Amino acid sequence: MKELLFGAAYYDEYMPCERLAQDVAMMKKAGINTVRIAESTWSTCEPQEGVFDFSHVERVMDVMEEAGINVIIGTPTYAVPTWMVKSHPDVIAETVHGRGIYGARQIMDITHPVYLFYAERVIRELMKCTAHRKCVIGYQIDNETKYYGTAGKNVQERFVKYLREKFHDDLDAMNREFGLDYWSNRINAWEDFPDVRGTINGSLGAEFEKFQRTLVDKFLSWQADIVNEYRRNDQFITHNFDFEWRGYSYGIQPDVNHYHAAQCLTIAGVDIYHPTQDDLTGAEIAFGGDMTRSLKNGNYLVLETEAQGYPGWTPYKGQLRLQAYSHLASGANSVMYWHWHSIHNSFETYWKGLLSHDFQENDAYREACLIGQEFQKIGKYLINIKKKNEVAILVSNEALTALKWFGIQATAAGNDGIGYNDVVRWIYDALYQMNVECDFIWPESENLNQYKAIFVPALYAAPDELLQKLNRYVADGGNLVATFKTAFANENVKVSHEVQPHILNNCFGVEYHQFTFPKNVGLKGTVVGENPEAEAKIFMELLISKGAEVLAHYDHYNWKEYAAITKNHYGRGTAVYLGCMTDQATLKAVMKDILQSAQVELPIYSYPVIVRKGINDFGKNVKYFFNYSAEEQNVPYIYKNGVELLAENPIKAQENLNIPAWGVKIVEECDEQ
Amino acid sequence: MKELLFGAAYYDEYMPCERLAQDVAMMKKAGINTVRIAESTWSTCEPQEGVFDFSHVERVMDVMEEAGINVIIGTPTYAVPTWMVKSHPDVIAETVHGRGIYGARQIMDITHPVYLFYAERVIRELMKCTAHRKCVIGYQIDNETKYYGTAGKNVQERFVKYLREKFHDDLDAMNREFGLDYWSNRINAWEDFPDVRGTINGSLGAEFEKFQRTLVDKFLSWQADIVNEYRRNDQFITHNFDFEWRGYSYGIQPDVNHYHAAQCLTIAGVDIYHPTQDDLTGAEIAFGGDMTRSLKNGNYLVLETEAQGYPGWTPYKGQLRLQAYSHLASGANSVMYWHWHSIHNSFETYWKGLLSHDFQENDAYREACLIGQEFQKIGKYLINIKKKNEVAILVSNEALTALKWFGIQATAAGNDGIGYNDVVRWIYDALYQMNVECDFIWPESENLNQYKAIFVPALYAAPDELLQKLNRYVADGGNLVATFKTAFANENVKVSHEVQPHILNNCFGVEYHQFTFPKNVGLKGTVVGENPEAEAKIFMELLISKGAEVLAHYDHYNWKEYAAITKNHYGRGTAVYLGCMTDQATLKAVMKDILQSAQVELPIYSYPVIVRKGINDFGKNVKYFFNYSAEEQNVPYIYKNGVELLAENPIKAQENLNIPAWGVKIVEECDEQ
Amino acid sequence: MKELLFGAAYYDEYMPCERLAQDVAMMKKAGINTVRIAESTWSTCEPQEGVFDFSHVERVMDVMEEAGINVIIGTPTYAVPTWMVKSHPDVIAETVHGRGIYGARQIMDITHPVYLFYAERVIRELMKCTAHRKCVIGYQIDNETKYYGTAGKNVQERFVKYLREKFHDDLDAMNREFGLDYWSNRINAWEDFPDVRGTINGSLGAEFEKFQRTLVDKFLSWQADIVNEYRRNDQFITHNFDFEWRGYSYGIQPDVNHYHAAQCLTIAGVDIYHPTQDDLTGAEIAFGGDMTRSLKNGNYLVLETEAQGYPGWTPYKGQLRLQAYSHLASGANSVMYWHWHSIHNSFETYWKGLLSHDFQENDAYREACLIGQEFQKIGKYLINIKKKNEVAILVSNEALTALKWFGIQATAAGNDGIGYNDVVRWIYDALYQMNVECDFIWPESENLNQYKAIFVPALYAAPDELLQKLNRYVADGGNLVATFKTAFANENVKVSHEVQPHILNNCFGVEYHQFTFPKNVGLKGTVVGENPEAEAKIFMELLISKGAEVLAHYDHYNWKEYAAITKNHYGRGTAVYLGCMTDQATLKAVMKDILQSAQVELPIYSYPVIVRKGINDFGKNVKYFFNYSAEEQNVPYIYKNGVELLAENPIKAQENLNIPAWGVKIVEECDEQ
Repeated sequence: MKELLFGAAYYDEYMPCERLAQDVAMMKKAGINTVRIAESTWSTCEPQEGVFDFSHVERVMDVMEEAGINVIIGTPTYAVPTWMVKSHPDVIAETVHGRGIYGARQIMDITHPVYLFYAERVIRELMKCTAHRKCVIGYQIDNETKYYGTAGKNVQERFVKYLREKFHDDLDAMNREFGLDYWSNRINAWEDFPDVRGTINGSLGAEFEKFQRTLVDKFLSWQADIVNEYRRNDQFITHNFDFEWRGYSYGIQPDVNHYHAAQCLTIAGVDIYHPTQDDLTGAEIAFGGDMTRSLKNGNYLVLETEAQGYPGWTPYKGQLRLQAYSHLASGANSVMYWHWHSIHNSFETYWKGLLSHDFQENDAYREACLIGQEFQKIGKYLINIKKKNEVAILVSNEALTALKWFGIQATAAGNDGIGYNDVVRWIYDALYQMNVECDFIWPESENLNQYKAIFVPALYAAPDELLQKLNRYVADGGNLVATFKTAFANENVKVSHEVQPHILNNCFGVEYHQFTFPKNVGLKGTVVGENPEAEAKIFMELLISKGAEVLAHYDHYNWKEYAAITKNHYGRGTAVYLGCMTDQATLKAVMKDILQSAQVELPIYSYPVIVRKGINDFGKNVKYFFNYSAEEQNVPYIYKNGVELLAENPIKAQENLNIPAWGVKIVEECDEQ
Repeated sequence: MKELLFGAAYYDEYMPCERLAQDVAMMKKAGINTVRIAESTWSTCEPQEGVFDFSHVERVMDVMEEAGINVIIGTPTYAVPTWMVKSHPDVIAETVHGRGIYGARQIMDITHPVYLFYAERVIRELMKCTAHRKCVIGYQIDNETKYYGTAGKNVQERFVKYLREKFHDDLDAMNREFGLDYWSNRINAWEDFPDVRGTINGSLGAEFEKFQRTLVDKFLSWQADIVNEYRRNDQFITHNFDFEWRGYSYGIQPDVNHYHAAQCLTIAGVDIYHPTQDDLTGAEIAFGGDMTRSLKNGNYLVLETEAQGYPGWTPYKGQLRLQAYSHLASGANSVMYWHWHSIHNSFETYWKGLLSHDFQENDAYREACLIGQEFQKIGKYLINIKKKNEVAILVSNEALTALKWFGIQATAAGNDGIGYNDVVRWIYDALYQMNVECDFIWPESENLNQYKAIFVPALYAAPDELLQKLNRYVADGGNLVATFKTAFANENVKVSHEVQPHILNNCFGVEYHQFTFPKNVGLKGTVVGENPEAEAKIFMELLISKGAEVLAHYDHYNWKEYAAITKNHYGRGTAVYLGCMTDQATLKAVMKDILQSAQVELPIYSYPVIVRKGINDFGKNVKYFFNYSAEEQNVPYIYKNGVELLAENPIKAQENLNIPAWGVKIVEECDEQ
Repeated sequence: MKELLFGAAYYDEYMPCERLAQDVAMMKKAGINTVRIAESTWSTCEPQEGVFDFSHVERVMDVMEEAGINVIIGTPTYAVPTWMVKSHPDVIAETVHGRGIYGARQIMDITHPVYLFYAERVIRELMKCTAHRKCVIGYQIDNETKYYGTAGKNVQERFVKYLREKFHDDLDAMNREFGLDYWSNRINAWEDFPDVRGTINGSLGAEFEKFQRTLVDKFLSWQADIVNEYRRNDQFITHNFDFEWRGYSYGIQPDVNHYHAAQCLTIAGVDIYHPTQDDLTGAEIAFGGDMTRSLKNGNYLVLETEAQGYPGWTPYKGQLRLQAYSHLASGANSVMYWHWHSIHNSFETYWKGLLSHDFQENDAYREACLIGQEFQKIGKYLINIKKKNEVAILVSNEALTALKWFGIQATAAGNDGIGYNDVVRWIYDALYQMNVECDFIWPESENLNQYKAIFVPALYAAPDELLQKLNRYVADGGNLVATFKTAFANENVKVSHEVQPHILNNCFGVEYHQFTFPKNVGLKGTVVGENPEAEAKIFMELLISKGAEVLAHYDHYNWKEYAAITKNHYGRGTAVYLGCMTDQATLKAVMKDILQSAQVELPIYSYPVIVRKGINDFGKNVKYFFNYSAEEQNVPYIYKNGVELLAENPIKAQENLNIPAWGVKIVEECDEQ
């Protein structure tokens, strides 16, 4: 990519009055060089079946081209027009709750031939009208695609075919692997296959969700194929991935396997939303960035992030800028707001854009102007940042789904409590706060050996091959840290009937036969030191060391003979096992221990001072220093001499680095000291 | 009205044994002079289609007439008989949840011709049997009518016709005004109109609810027309309105526009339920009374209020009497309990009447006897009380609905939090506690100039004409107080794209481009004084003064440059803007400031001493002094010499007025000092 | 029964690998002598319609017979195979939520002829294959049977026929008794009978639930009849009853009348699940045991109880053993775990068995070995324990259902709050903690006079005959303790219109006309003494003594004239009335008072030391001393000289009895001192 993209989604269609010229003028003033258009506008592009009207698209391209602003075209397929549903009511997905009612986006059956027929036609028409345009730099296919719970007859019949293939038509094998004998769920003829929406079998249910995720892969790659027929080589193809939503971007997306779905893209894209004001930590920006960068092992686009967002997100002074650089620091080549202007009607009226409903300059816009000017000035030093991280976190959609069916804190009273992503974020956030940058890897990843240390949160459901791969990684000299709930069930959510942790027991040098929920259970041991607040939380496995060093054991009259945290030398490597969730201090002590022995660099800085780094197009090291607090931070600069890019000041090693409240400093190191 | 009505709903139909003679005797002993009957008894009045049996009605009228007790006849239409639903299952309303199952009241489609056909016939038969009866003083049409979510095909087709008329068949105008382009909801042919039950468009959704409210208006006026064909001129026609229900009568009824629906009545009627015991404040009685009195600008009927009610409402000694006089003090000409006796079966068994299930005298009944005797003795001084309030509160169903779609505290995680009525009650209750009596006005009201001060809580959705009317009110010398969330969107819930507050910005001398949720945000400024607990709550607009005096600004490091509460002189009047919700003390300080400059009388009394006043049929001032606490209150009597009516004692200005716990004193002033 | 049954449910069908020989070896080592098999395995027993395959059953019987392990055969009918639902979708029950989707157990219509046809056939085939086997000691028909909400057309038509019979075809009688006139629910022709699923009439609704419970009785007795055709005389027939589920076995089962349903069994069976670790109190074991023993007035089988169960239940050392003896101490002749091994798939994967998923020995298994050895050694002294309790608690499904419709804490805002079982457990648990053992009795029980004292919690809905029976019980010298909400409505949930408490008012010497929820209401009086924490909770009736001694009155300025707890001599007996729920100390003081005057033995021991007793097959008194705490307990042994069976030590009266943490001592008294 040649320049950082700074911009916003722009909806000429939604404007309450003629604004285009004024908007472009305000964009130029703000240094905005890219807009994303057309996404979700099917009903204006094709007002009636077969009648196309791309006038909004055309006029925006015309004006943007004139103004030198790039355009990203989004295919409009993630919300269907009324005429389609009126003629073909069954394009609305049938879910476990029955068939939906028209209104919301993302409620259609993405496998339905009627939907696919119309979607293909509108995409082709849109491509014809846009692919040749100079301003158009790339395409976003669909938006935040998921499978929307689609589980109608057609989907279920495909699922049965998928199972017949998976099990080579061997019903017995399926019954055995999924444990369908239980509660008389055994299927003794394929034609008896029951409506899977009602299943209580976690293996079958999780398999269906995995199958549904493949529908997303297929749909996106089908769209990409169509777009590829038209796009120029210099035009990218991306998608706007999103995350598990807890009112903000929290963790792995349960309904999409990002790693699979990203295969058909030329560059990964993402939206990242997060709390601000006193709750702005940068963790979500880093998490979402590290994950999206890892998808295709390269730079990525932030296609959406909040400008003002909901009232609780109205940024404090400095925060918008802090956020923008935080995205770049993770490897993003763009910062694009959702969206330019706040919408005056409908549903997301309070998901405010850079401009409020009044289109006036406001504090957020004024800060965007500053960001835009800085990007123009120093963007060339910040674009295409490459990272070479020493640490990775292994994540798995299958583990997530399995732990949804079998909740970590599930009791006979219900399946509430924390989920997989809570464990992922427990690990990730501690590394983030310690300023240990990391990549994400997936079960299929083959590049394990490039990492000095790999963290494996709650890898509950995993194929034997993956566990063996982890075994080899340690044997070959790697440093592995896994948490409770790892290596318990196979990829079909069948719990191992051999010793737990399955396959990895020798690697970790532990086994366990029992587990429980900790109540008033402390932790004692070398790794804990004198911390009186060390405690086991949420879930605890009653570990028995089979040679591992016990870093901590449980401090409770009934569980005191069991280990809680262990460390084992295996082959040429080391494996740490966390048998329970712990307080932050204990976790960080464990991490520090293993990372030090893994010879991973441990910065002296810690949250709220966040340091992120990479190598830029000039081959130079760039280091970001963020202050995620309302108090000014003064820290020593300990790296090579360089230039603080924002102020254009030279900086020497050991000099004091002053970072204002919610501020940022960026140092490009000199080649020589 | 000639005499205060004191009474109860009476259901001979529900009696487990023959009770009529005994009940009348107990009523006479209690001074009860009115019963309401027949309401909700369709299945006894018309046991089979076309077979009528008014024997319960007849025998009650006979006995009441004999005993000199008035009868109010309720049409029985708010609960349908089984035979109707068995023959015509589709009279049950189809809502967003599908079609209901027979059982509850208020689940039919009030637009369904089958329902209307049968309803008309039973009303006509009932009128024939009752209209000529001497004891029958009036009619209540239906009961607590709402639209019950009716949204089936027939209703939706009427709605489309309504929209075609509203937009003069101009689809583009509708799409633009409702912002339907968003998320591809645009409707490009009327025949494509989707099932509105699924809409996520707040403008369309709110319009549908407004349309549904007109169904209530039409239904009631249709009933009134039928009743009018039969009733004598001396017989009134009323309806039993109710309020937003939070386990008690809380605020504006979301599903009915009372102001519109009341047009067809000769006198407004209402039910008011409220907490008692330690939680009895009188606020709901005053609120419901002030609102109902304002509907037709005159006295009104309390058709239902609690006697014993649910177990948590069992009144303390004195409370039933305190409540009765509180109703009168708001302008009620009746106090009628729901209901005479507690019901022995079905659903509202624990909504107890004046008598418990055992029909014995009990504390509540004994207190009713006291009330009845006092009403007989001094009722003539208390009936037909007229008020001339200097203050009004402007309320709006459209604002309420819009703030349901766009919750004040909505976040990207959900639409929870306070609603419109919380803001209304925040304003109302402060005035109530300060003993500033007020009327209610509606967007259509034309009598603004009669008020020295008008309070406008959260008028989120309002037509330009209304905002211009408020502008003129201030320009002409009025005193206006509006809160946050006022003048933000038009009547179609389209947010203004001009400066906020829309149209009123000059009047208030402020504007704002941003808003947020306050977290640890204090208030500082002249109106706050030394109050360390002054704080911004719930929602805060970042006000920029354009000439207004800043009464308070936000006390927070990031927001301190913004104003919170402002006061502006505009034309000959004054306009105060509350940019945030505040603590009670700050609100009252603001109110005191504006009311003093508006020359509104500010009594020295304050809650728990409540003073309410009016002019009686003798043209004399009557003042009620209520003690809403468990502690005796001693206050100076500061008005003209008069007579305390309950004890028949003269009272002089500056004498001490002793009001016992949960007690009341009523003073009729002498003409001369 | 000849020997204590110690065992587990065993599912050869669910095994992930060949385990039978190893499992039997581990069972033998643990002293396990019984397994329960076949329950819920329909889809393996009859893989296709009419194709039977009992190979799993056969091979388990073969091996168990060889090993000398008893087998209990469960009929597999509580979960239906896929082929049945595929061919006959309407065997899935239609409930108030519509028809379910295949997947879970217990979702079929137990009245559906298709289901019954297939169920009968598979039972007959299973009986043919098992009844002659030596190892088969008995049958469990179905499992935890309920009516699963079945309310389709067929069920409703049967219900109407049931009502026609109940009311002798007299619609007026039904309308009157159920109060259907209310809200126009009156039914004026049987053919108008509405869909009962929508009813809001508590009488009709409760009657329907009572009718639905009879479906369970009929279904079980129909199964028993089939089994009886085949079983040998030495083979028992039982059922696995369960309780109201609050994440563990809490109280009376709302959906089954155990007393009725148990008629067709030769021995009662039950599953009991309960919290463990710090929350293990023994109360659920005792409650469930006392209730199940009372069903058929004899020993019973614990067919399921937890081994490890959910992670929160992983037992502390000693607890599994403590639990096992606690079951025996209530009169159980078996302790059977659910289940042998933890299941590797599906739904109850975390409802762990004696073995974890790894089939290894673990702490729980090791403790089971100890239990098994002890049972073999001393079981003959502990089997067939007979009790002769002096105290009974009267429970009623009808009261439970009625208080679900009319919640004790229901308000105009909703029907939340405690239910019938909370009152039952409030009474039961206090007796348990005081070591007063009790039986349960039901409305139909005729053996009242055998008890010195009867406790009646919240007998809200009761026929006059039952209340008269209680009256006679007291008149004849009995001691009756009833709580608030007793004798308020008849069996049709029609509230009495005579004085409350209905019929029993003279017996208790009180009446009341009003009630309320206590807020800050203390209690004062002789029974309270100096306890400053005595308070009225949840619900309080405003009692007026009509001759009763007032043990406590309400301490509140408005309610102080009303009695809270009274005691009355009536005939030759005494009747105590608790007008409110109270703190534990007050309740126990009341209990102590009445039990002393009833000359019921009051042990000196109290929780956490629990004493349970009975007479064994040798006619000797056996006394269990349990320590339900983590601290060792030392108490005097105050009974006759005897032998502590576990340690085989003699013990003398007044010697110290040391009970370790979570420990147990068992004394068989000598005949002579």
